[in-house]
Amino acid sequence: MRRSILALFVIALFLDSAIADSPQPSDHAPLDGFSAPHALAERLWENKFRAIPSAQNQRDSMQLLSARPHHVGSPYDKQNAEWILSKFKEWGLDAHIETFHVLFPTPKRRLLEMTAPTKYVAKLQEPVVSEDPTSNQRDEQLPTYNAYSHDGDVTAPLVYVNYGLRDDYDQLQRLGVSVKGAIVIARYGNSWRGMKPKIAAEHGAVGCLIYSDPRDDGYFDGDVFPKGPMRPDQGVQRGSVMDFASNYPGDPLTFDRGDANAPRYTASDAPSITKIPTLPISYGDAQPLLAALTGPLAPEEWRGALPIPYHVGPGAAKVHLVVESNWDIKDVNDIIARIPGSSEPDEWVVRGNHHDGWVNGAEDPISGQVALLEEARSFGELLRQGWKPKRTIIYCAWDGEEPMLLGSTAWAETHGAELRQHAAVYINSDGNGRGYLYMEGSHSLEHFMNDVARNIEDPESKLSVFDRDRMADIVNAKSDEDRKQLRERADLRMEALGSGTDYTAFIDHLGVASLNLAYFGEDDGGIYHSIYDDFYWFTHFSDTNFAYGVALSQTIGTAVMRMADADVLPYEFTDFADTMQKYAKDLQKLLQDKQEEAREREQELKDNDFQAAFDPRHPTVAPPAEDIPPYLNFAPLENALDALNKSAERYKAAFSKAESAGFPGAEKQLLELNETLIQSERRLTDPAGLPRRPWYKHMIYAPGVYTGYAPKTMPGIRECIELRRWDDADAQIVRVAKVLQSEAALLDTASADLDALKP
Amino acid sequence: MRRSILALFVIALFLDSAIADSPQPSDHAPLDGFSAPHALAERLWENKFRAIPSAQNQRDSMQLLSARPHHVGSPYDKQNAEWILSKFKEWGLDAHIETFHVLFPTPKRRLLEMTAPTKYVAKLQEPVVSEDPTSNQRDEQLPTYNAYSHDGDVTAPLVYVNYGLRDDYDQLQRLGVSVKGAIVIARYGNSWRGMKPKIAAEHGAVGCLIYSDPRDDGYFDGDVFPKGPMRPDQGVQRGSVMDFASNYPGDPLTFDRGDANAPRYTASDAPSITKIPTLPISYGDAQPLLAALTGPLAPEEWRGALPIPYHVGPGAAKVHLVVESNWDIKDVNDIIARIPGSSEPDEWVVRGNHHDGWVNGAEDPISGQVALLEEARSFGELLRQGWKPKRTIIYCAWDGEEPMLLGSTAWAETHGAELRQHAAVYINSDGNGRGYLYMEGSHSLEHFMNDVARNIEDPESKLSVFDRDRMADIVNAKSDEDRKQLRERADLRMEALGSGTDYTAFIDHLGVASLNLAYFGEDDGGIYHSIYDDFYWFTHFSDTNFAYGVALSQTIGTAVMRMADADVLPYEFTDFADTMQKYAKDLQKLLQDKQEEAREREQELKDNDFQAAFDPRHPTVAPPAEDIPPYLNFAPLENALDALNKSAERYKAAFSKAESAGFPGAEKQLLELNETLIQSERRLTDPAGLPRRPWYKHMIYAPGVYTGYAPKTMPGIRECIELRRWDDADAQIVRVAKVLQSEAALLDTASADLDALKP
Repeated sequence: MRRSILALFVIALFLDSAIADSPQPSDHAPLDGFSAPHALAERLWENKFRAIPSAQNQRDSMQLLSARPHHVGSPYDKQNAEWILSKFKEWGLDAHIETFHVLFPTPKRRLLEMTAPTKYVAKLQEPVVSEDPTSNQRDEQLPTYNAYSHDGDVTAPLVYVNYGLRDDYDQLQRLGVSVKGAIVIARYGNSWRGMKPKIAAEHGAVGCLIYSDPRDDGYFDGDVFPKGPMRPDQGVQRGSVMDFASNYPGDPLTFDRGDANAPRYTASDAPSITKIPTLPISYGDAQPLLAALTGPLAPEEWRGALPIPYHVGPGAAKVHLVVESNWDIKDVNDIIARIPGSSEPDEWVVRGNHHDGWVNGAEDPISGQVALLEEARSFGELLRQGWKPKRTIIYCAWDGEEPMLLGSTAWAETHGAELRQHAAVYINSDGNGRGYLYMEGSHSLEHFMNDVARNIEDPESKLSVFDRDRMADIVNAKSDEDRKQLRERADLRMEALGSGTDYTAFIDHLGVASLNLAYFGEDDGGIYHSIYDDFYWFTHFSDTNFAYGVALSQTIGTAVMRMADADVLPYEFTDFADTMQKYAKDLQKLLQDKQEEAREREQELKDNDFQAAFDPRHPTVAPPAEDIPPYLNFAPLENALDALNKSAERYKAAFSKAESAGFPGAEKQLLELNETLIQSERRLTDPAGLPRRPWYKHMIYAPGVYTGYAPKTMPGIRECIELRRWDDADAQIVRVAKVLQSEAALLDTASADLDALKP
Repeated sequence: MRRSILALFVIALFLDSAIADSPQPSDHAPLDGFSAPHALAERLWENKFRAIPSAQNQRDSMQLLSARPHHVGSPYDKQNAEWILSKFKEWGLDAHIETFHVLFPTPKRRLLEMTAPTKYVAKLQEPVVSEDPTSNQRDEQLPTYNAYSHDGDVTAPLVYVNYGLRDDYDQLQRLGVSVKGAIVIARYGNSWRGMKPKIAAEHGAVGCLIYSDPRDDGYFDGDVFPKGPMRPDQGVQRGSVMDFASNYPGDPLTFDRGDANAPRYTASDAPSITKIPTLPISYGDAQPLLAALTGPLAPEEWRGALPIPYHVGPGAAKVHLVVESNWDIKDVNDIIARIPGSSEPDEWVVRGNHHDGWVNGAEDPISGQVALLEEARSFGELLRQGWKPKRTIIYCAWDGEEPMLLGSTAWAETHGAELRQHAAVYINSDGNGRGYLYMEGSHSLEHFMNDVARNIEDPESKLSVFDRDRMADIVNAKSDEDRKQLRERADLRMEALGSGTDYTAFIDHLGVASLNLAYFGEDDGGIYHSIYDDFYWFTHFSDTNFAYGVALSQTIGTAVMRMADADVLPYEFTDFADTMQKYAKDLQKLLQDKQEEAREREQELKDNDFQAAFDPRHPTVAPPAEDIPPYLNFAPLENALDALNKSAERYKAAFSKAESAGFPGAEKQLLELNETLIQSERRLTDPAGLPRRPWYKHMIYAPGVYTGYAPKTMPGIRECIELRRWDDADAQIVRVAKVLQSEAALLDTASADLDALKP
């Protein structure tokens, strides 16, 4: 084809699509990172895109992918991987499977019995529900267990430890109760489940039971399955208890697949495997055990919704726990599909959701996987219509997320060097529900994601999902200050990333700016990691018409397209700087509170006030004296925040000016600018990693060493304060200040590059 | 006897008792209202007094008085009255019984059945417990019922209304649920029980069930009876549901026995009788009813501890309720014992505790009655040793408190004119437990009671009960501000008086400065108004060794003696003024909060924010628009508070100066001063009473029209704001200001009187 004809053809195509889409006034609105004509084209392509995802396809795919149990190493997991691969290929994507070999233990023996004061043998079995056609696939179901529990056979008195957090053990000490030599029973919730055996072992326990209390996960919140969506009395939450947060996620036997020199462990000495045997149980099995406890009454906030007085124990209640696993190496199969970038192929937009489940896993993870598949199918369609993304898009269907991010970690580590160089963003989902858009991620993407949310329509209210979030947050705000911020701040605040899903290696290990997205909030349920998380449950109780599944495809697909197509990558740093300011203030407040608490405790101990509050019938122990936290030198951090703030404002002005000018200049200039910007999140990492956990390189976000799911922001500093490691705190402040100064310097370079753009 | 001999004799007696008691340095400490020599003598008499009350006597008396059911009109109630009379007489007190004839309904028919979707007939019967020897006295036990419920036979759908407060109905409205034509089921707690049928009827309900949820009164707080002290599944809280707070307590058929022209009603038109049939039930009987409800899930804070999802209803659940009473006139027998004052006999110190129970009533009221009896016995002993109280002491064992303060109200109204003239203080108790001293009362007595508490030893910690309260409050304080106040304010704050026990007519109707005292806090239980409130329960689970019974005798006896013996009545008004300041600030804050809430709601309605928070699967209704509360004129109150503050400070200085000088002057001067001071609480009343409830004359304290037990401070103003009666609010502010100005004027007179005392 000659050039002039090609040009005409392109114009014709453009006009055609413009007419077909009849651009609305809103399609002419500016779009961060796009020149005005590119913004219009992008909006029209996005409009086309958002019309494609199909609820029926999502439904059909979910029915297929969740038809049988598909945990790591199962035949159906492999079959699903092959099917996903075939679909990616069918839609025209360049796809392949990458296989890794990882340690994945499965149950060999499980026994739990109370031997005194009465005998009770725990069922450890989720019953078949006649209405639910896949609940009877017992031969293929993984029994209820906690993966990466240490093997063990122990008999010991039982002690109830609430959620099993460190504070709970402090309270137990005040009640005069020790767990040394005991088996603890903790309820699920308020931390990554693996923290419970970890903290229990640190306090001398020899075994750990974890149960779902109906207060948190059962009838307290509604009718139970199959009458309603909530957890029935014999429902059990499976799940990994790997201690990834203090060590690393992924295969326990090796640390960093990208590094040939990483140490290799055996199953018996791998640091991320629990120190004590651990087993999850239902509230049906927990009730007889808890009812048998004597000893002090549990503090009020410890009491759940079982119809018993919650005693802490110990007492006559003695239990026998046996946990033994098959410590096998299994394959995990990641399906990787690529859409090559047309003009900046070495800048990557990565998108993922896992495909393995604990059992049938319809909500977790298939509801997210089917949204991802519809995005991929729609992109195939757009490509056929002539859409040419500027950057490379990589779609990933991860395997082995459930055991602990096995597939994504292995892939991210293996491709670490490339990803560090090329990845502009990683966008994750891990299932989907119904309700509000939940956004969490890197704060350089906060403004970007808010803009995407402004362009997605909520299927129920027909408001934008941004407006729906904002307005409902106003109604439900806990304080006038929150409400004021919701009304006055342009963007909704995004939560920081903790862990528990596949973004972990990207953000924490590699420093790739990441997002985690889902619709939730109107889809209560109690089937998490049970045999009832299946197509029947999902299509009766969750996003039954897949309207929010389509919304998730639209949301994430829009984000992917915008990141892939922009002239200049639409990171924004004033929201980031504002958030860093907030985190720093939070830390200063935390220190101050700890100081005041310690001073108050010192005073009360000195005055003997605890003696006055002592009830001889319910004896308590005064809390131990604590050192009063020293003042810390926050000046380096404050100076860095000042610099960051200034640089972010400068960048914003330069970006806005250049955008108004249509991002003039040579392609090479923009390419270099984008390559600089891609490194902006990497600047927040330090190769030495966080104290005592070098795998975690990000200085701003990390899962908490004692929380797991929940993020710790500026974790080096925060955990020094929380864990009272005063010696190291000033040094950690300096390290955080350093990455923020480095970020400011990068922004100054980028601002100069923008200012230098000339037509 | 010649005068000189008498003088010698008196000196010898004084020396004798001084030697016998070997005065400690602390016995020489000053005592408010006493000259130095009188203070020493008082302290020595008090020391003697506090050594007399006997735990064994309390135990024996409790065993006797609670041996059989002793509700109003029962043979054993009468027998107890005669026995108490005989004891007062035996101890040398001038005692008699005053009998009143009052309406007291008892059960004729009670039926509660669920007719759909399944059949369930409520048991309405507390089972015999074999360990508990009095639980089987079924022939004499009053069946479980609510006294003064309207008769009725209704069948209607059931709706769960949480605690049945007005806010709960606002929430129901937001859930789209109406109670019109329904029978409501409310849980006990958070209000006087009579508010539940009252508010239900105001919302159109046709019947009312009240049950004890195990979250508030059952296994949630510990082992149930007989294993532990908590309410068992078939335990029921009987109780009156008379609407006394909007009308008046006492016999429903007449308003103010002191007034011959007071209207007379019949049982069918008495305003304080409920408008709908009402029945209390156990959680055992409530569970099948609540489990049958469908409709919206109850808001989280509505859910109790039954092992069910709490739905609000309505739905298929239909219940049939029949309540019919014998509307009989019964006798109530108050036992009144008098110790005449030696020098100021027309100034009265009145002390009371009721003796009637709902069934065996060991804790309620006998634990308080046996403390009162030991006080009276001890005073008999002191009188024999030569103690001569300056003022008249009147001991009252009330009957008919449980139905609704029948005995105390009738007596207080009958003797209203005398009491208004003579009563310096009324000191109430209504049972006793174990733990901390709880003090509530008129704030002119706050400093006085704090001083008493400084002189009573806690039997467990051996600290003073003042120190124990203060130190434990510091440990349990909810805010730094509270803690600071506990450390820095000389006196512990005393709660205002609401209602629910026998001080009501004294404080609210007559304006007699009152106190209500008890030890509680380490004596959890769930036997309130059930057949299990008996000697077995009390001696197994509450103040088992009667150590706190003795402490209560010591505490109240000391207070009675000090009030009776002081040269100048030890009221103190700077604490009072400080408290009034606090109440005024609370009101201004309340108004401001209401204004902000209304403005916020207006904004949210205007912005349609509720539409965004709407979940079509769980439909809700936006709250109605509310007028924005107007600004009110608090200036009269603020001016009055300034005047009061100044007068209170002036009085304090004058009192202190006069006390240092030994309260010189003629007896007549002191008498006049005391007669002025006695009127100080009366100055806080207004003969016209509170809006729409003229029986309530006190302008500072009242039970809430919609709370009952809980006090409303400056109720005229407060209820205008809470009930949004803006028209009347400014006028009510003026009325409160007026009584405070009048109080200030009285204090100025008293200050001048003190200044005028000359040797």
